[in-house]
This record gives sequence, C-alpha cells and structure tokens, in this order.
Amino acid sequence: MIPDKENLVKTSKRIHHLIHKTPVISSKSINKIVGAELFFKCENFQKMGAFKMRGAANAILKLSETEKNKGVTTHSSGNFAQAVALSSRMSNINATIVMPNNAPSVKKNAVIGYGAKVVDCQPTLEAREKTAQEIVNKTGATFLHPYNCYNVISGNATATMELLDQTTQLETIFAPIGGGGLISGTALAANYFSTTKVYGSEPKGADDAYQSFKSGKLVPITNPQTIADGLRTSLGDKCFPIIQKYVEDIFTVEEHEIIGALRLTWERMKIIIEPSCAVPLAAIIKNKHLFKNQRIGIIITGGNVDLAKLPF
Amino acid sequence: MIPDKENLVKTSKRIHHLIHKTPVISSKSINKIVGAELFFKCENFQKMGAFKMRGAANAILKLSETEKNKGVTTHSSGNFAQAVALSSRMSNINATIVMPNNAPSVKKNAVIGYGAKVVDCQPTLEAREKTAQEIVNKTGATFLHPYNCYNVISGNATATMELLDQTTQLETIFAPIGGGGLISGTALAANYFSTTKVYGSEPKGADDAYQSFKSGKLVPITNPQTIADGLRTSLGDKCFPIIQKYVEDIFTVEEHEIIGALRLTWERMKIIIEPSCAVPLAAIIKNKHLFKNQRIGIIITGGNVDLAKLPF
Repeated sequence: MIPDKENLVKTSKRIHHLIHKTPVISSKSINKIVGAELFFKCENFQKMGAFKMRGAANAILKLSETEKNKGVTTHSSGNFAQAVALSSRMSNINATIVMPNNAPSVKKNAVIGYGAKVVDCQPTLEAREKTAQEIVNKTGATFLHPYNCYNVISGNATATMELLDQTTQLETIFAPIGGGGLISGTALAANYFSTTKVYGSEPKGADDAYQSFKSGKLVPITNPQTIADGLRTSLGDKCFPIIQKYVEDIFTVEEHEIIGALRLTWERMKIIIEPSCAVPLAAIIKNKHLFKNQRIGIIITGGNVDLAKLPF
Repeated sequence: MIPDKENLVKTSKRIHHLIHKTPVISSKSINKIVGAELFFKCENFQKMGAFKMRGAANAILKLSETEKNKGVTTHSSGNFAQAVALSSRMSNINATIVMPNNAPSVKKNAVIGYGAKVVDCQPTLEAREKTAQEIVNKTGATFLHPYNCYNVISGNATATMELLDQTTQLETIFAPIGGGGLISGTALAANYFSTTKVYGSEPKGADDAYQSFKSGKLVPITNPQTIADGLRTSLGDKCFPIIQKYVEDIFTVEEHEIIGALRLTWERMKIIIEPSCAVPLAAIIKNKHLFKNQRIGIIITGGNVDLAKLPF
C-alpha cells in the first residue's frame, strides 16, 4: 500500500539514528543565472554519500527479528549496494551484495569496507537476478529492491520532509527520476506536508518515466544512453502510480545540458555531486521562464563520482 | 605594527557584513585514516571561493574616505584579484587589477564580473609591479598587497577566530604557507584567543617558509615547482617574524602526497578544494604519529579550481 502520512512520520523517527540530517545550501550566482531562489538539499553529504541510505535503512529496520537473523541481499553496482552494506552493519545484520564482475573494484571495496559480503556474477540483469535469487533460496535472506519498494520510498521521503522543515514556503521541488523511488518519496512528502509542487527531470537518453507519464502506460527503458549513471534504471511499477498522481510534470534534458549544470554546481558551489544530481538544475535552467522568482528545492542525490572519469 | 588582540576583535566586527561565516565540517572516514579528529574550516564556501576575501575586505574598509575615492589596485592572477574586485564593489569603490596577459580568461572574466577594471601586462613579476606602480602614480589608487600587509593578516585571522568559536578545545590548527599571510593571521588568532598550537605546511617544491623557519633567515623562493598554485609565492617579511614567534613547526610534503590528500578530500568529503588546501591534510597524514587522537583544525583556503586541469 502506498505509504500514508503517518507512515512517513514513523519512518522519519525510525531511521533517525542511522542517517545524517543533511544541510541545505544556496548559491547567489546560480540564483542569478536561474532568476529564482534554489535550495539544494545536499544528500551528497549523507552517510555513504547518497540519499539511498535513507531507503535502505528503513527497509532494514522494518524487517522482523527472524528476517534480520537471516540477513539481506540485493544486486547493485551503485549506491544502493553501499547503502545496504552500511545500514546492515549499523543494524548488526548480514548483507550479501551481488555485483557484476565488471563493477569497478573501488565500488566493490567500498561495499566490503562496510562489512558486506560480495558475490560476483555475469554483468547482465538476468545473471544478477538469478544470483540474488539463489542467495535468497539458500540462506533465507530478504531481497531488498533499490527503488520499487514502499519501505524504500518512505525512507527516501524523509529527505523532502527535512528539506521542507529547513526552508520556508517552497513553491516547487525538483528531483531526478531513475527507477522512481526518490521522486515517489519526494512527491508523497510534498503532498502530505506542504502545498509544494513536485517536478521530475530525466536525461533525454533515458526518458522512460517521461514516456510513461505522457502516455499513461509504463514504458520500459531500452538501451539508456546518459552520463547520469544513477538514472539508467527502468521505472518501477510501484513508483509509476505515485508519479502519475502526485508529480506535476516531467522535463527532459540533453547530455550537454547535464554536463553544463554539473560543471556549474562544482564551480560555483564547490561541492562534488554526481551527474544524476545535475539533471534537475539542467531542467530548471532550460525552463527558467516557467519558474521565475520561485523558491525551488532540489534534491542533490549523491556525490559518489569516479574522479578518473570526469566529463570536463 | 603586528596586529594585537584588540585589532583582531575590531577587524572581525568591521568585515562582518562583507563575508560569510563559513561552516566547519568533519569526515569520520578521514578521521579514521588519520587517527585524530579533524575540523575543516571551509573557506572554499567563502564569498568568491577563498579566504582571501577576509583580508581584502579588511584592507579596503581600513582606507580613509580620501583613499576610497581614489580607488585601489593590485596585481594578481589568483584569488586576491577576485577578492579585491568583489570587496571593492561591495564597498562601492573603484578597483583596477593588473593581470598577466597569459592569465586564463576565466579568471579575468571573474574579476570583470565583479566589476573591476583589468589591465594586462607581460607575465613577469617586474612587469606586474611596474604596471601597478604606474596606476598608483596616475590615479592615486592605493596599492593592496595580497599578504605582506597587516590589514590583510588581521582579516585572514578572522577565519581562525570563527573556527575557535565553532569548535571546542582544538589542540592544533594547520594552515598552508604561501606568502605567509594566512598562517600569520592563524597564529595570531590562536595565540590571542586559545592555547591551540599552530603548524604550517608547505610543498617540498616551494619550501621557502620551511627553509626560512629552520635557518632563521628569510630565504626567497626560487623556481617553485608544485601543483599547489596558491603556494608558489615568496614569504613576506612582515609575515616571517610572526611565523618565527607564533608557529610551532613547519612540515613539508611531496607532490604525490598533496594529490593523494586532495583526492581523499574530494572523494570522502564531497567538497571541491584547491590543491593548496590539501597540503595541511597531507602533512597531518604524513606525521600522524605526532597528532594521535588530537582535535585538529585545518583551514581549507579555497575552492577555485580549473576543472579542465585536474591531476586525477
């Protein structure tokens, strides 16, 4: 069932001790460029460097004692792997992360560093799912989905609850859309606790949420092409109805617009953000005539960047 | 005369409206690596992106009305140029910045963007000084030195006054040394307002302050070779006696240690810092046996980095 207002309030209290209350920062020079007041909710400063910590922490804390004893598993090469690993360690339960054998060793080492066990598999979605299923069958571990899960969505919602608490009278909040777990939480929180409108943003080269939103039918992603590596996933079927109901509109942006917004944020704000985080700012700059003089929140999703592969 | 305690208190009140009170942040993972508790004073989030704003603001606000009417000038291709330009605009006075004709256009444009006039010159120290002198002769403008000036040193000291106020019981503060204006202010503030010891740090390839400190004689810099572009300047003769009296010791670090500390900060703390800022952390990591379990402040000097020229 789609999380209700009370669920979100309980979630916020539940995960409180496992997460950072991240800062909200602004840049006068970016405000000047956009012609609006932007408030960046800095989940790049979250534990393990991304908002994923919130959803993972909630999913794990919602497990029964029996489930906790059997541990958890997921397949991910990105931030959710680290989030599950760290949340598990903090909750003293076992985590096994299935990672494609071509995942960068720095990412594997981060997961191992957080105390999880890594199981290699072939780099296909099929192999990942099969390997995770084998672990579930063998150990009784609970499989955690990175976004298509109400507990994860509730956890993600707490970033927006904080943002609303840390600012006054936001007219708009922007979030990027990958699998839809973040925007779903964002939209629910904004709807329950404010009159703020929520907009999504996607790379043109991975615009399955945009296609789905406009057509009214869940369109699966095929061959995503974008530097925003966090947004290459397919929209979840639990997320889509929430987006349809609570998201105002979705904008798409080109790759050069993402890179431009990424560079602008690095240069003017002096913070390291992932390419995915630059998608909302790129969408706002592209459509600034629609948001003139507004007070706009942006969820900065994370800061785990491979410095050896920068687009500058 | 070397600024006294009262001078620093007055300076802090004087420049208050022109500067940001910057945040102090920490990283558990870096603390773990170092075996100490580090507190990063984030002057990369200062106006125009560097601590230089503090000294420039103070030097300008200390001018008489007659001097203000005649404007100011300096020669710089770096942060001090932007700091003078912005402080001048905020104080409604004219600024003329002499910049070498090979300075990156992005830096010139930043200075022009802050409303200052840029005068080109040949890229030698001699040409820079001569051109600035001509401007002084012609317009009666006051020449502002980027570091070898007590008003600039007092202004710089306010970063440490804030840091001491934002933390409790720091045992040590580290700052990098270029011309010596920052470490002088840091050492004076620490001496007047705490029992905290101050250490300097320098690239091995630009170690004139180290050489001077150890020999007791001001050794000029020759052919500095370091990625830490803010630290290639020669130690000032007003700074040296302050360093001799109030700085505990100076450490030098190799280039690969600077780049390693730079990368560590970017990756773990998700903040953009200049190579110069990584020198103190590199020195602490190198000498961590000396600072075990201490509470250590680090002045993060700035975040104006050319993203097209990263060492990663």
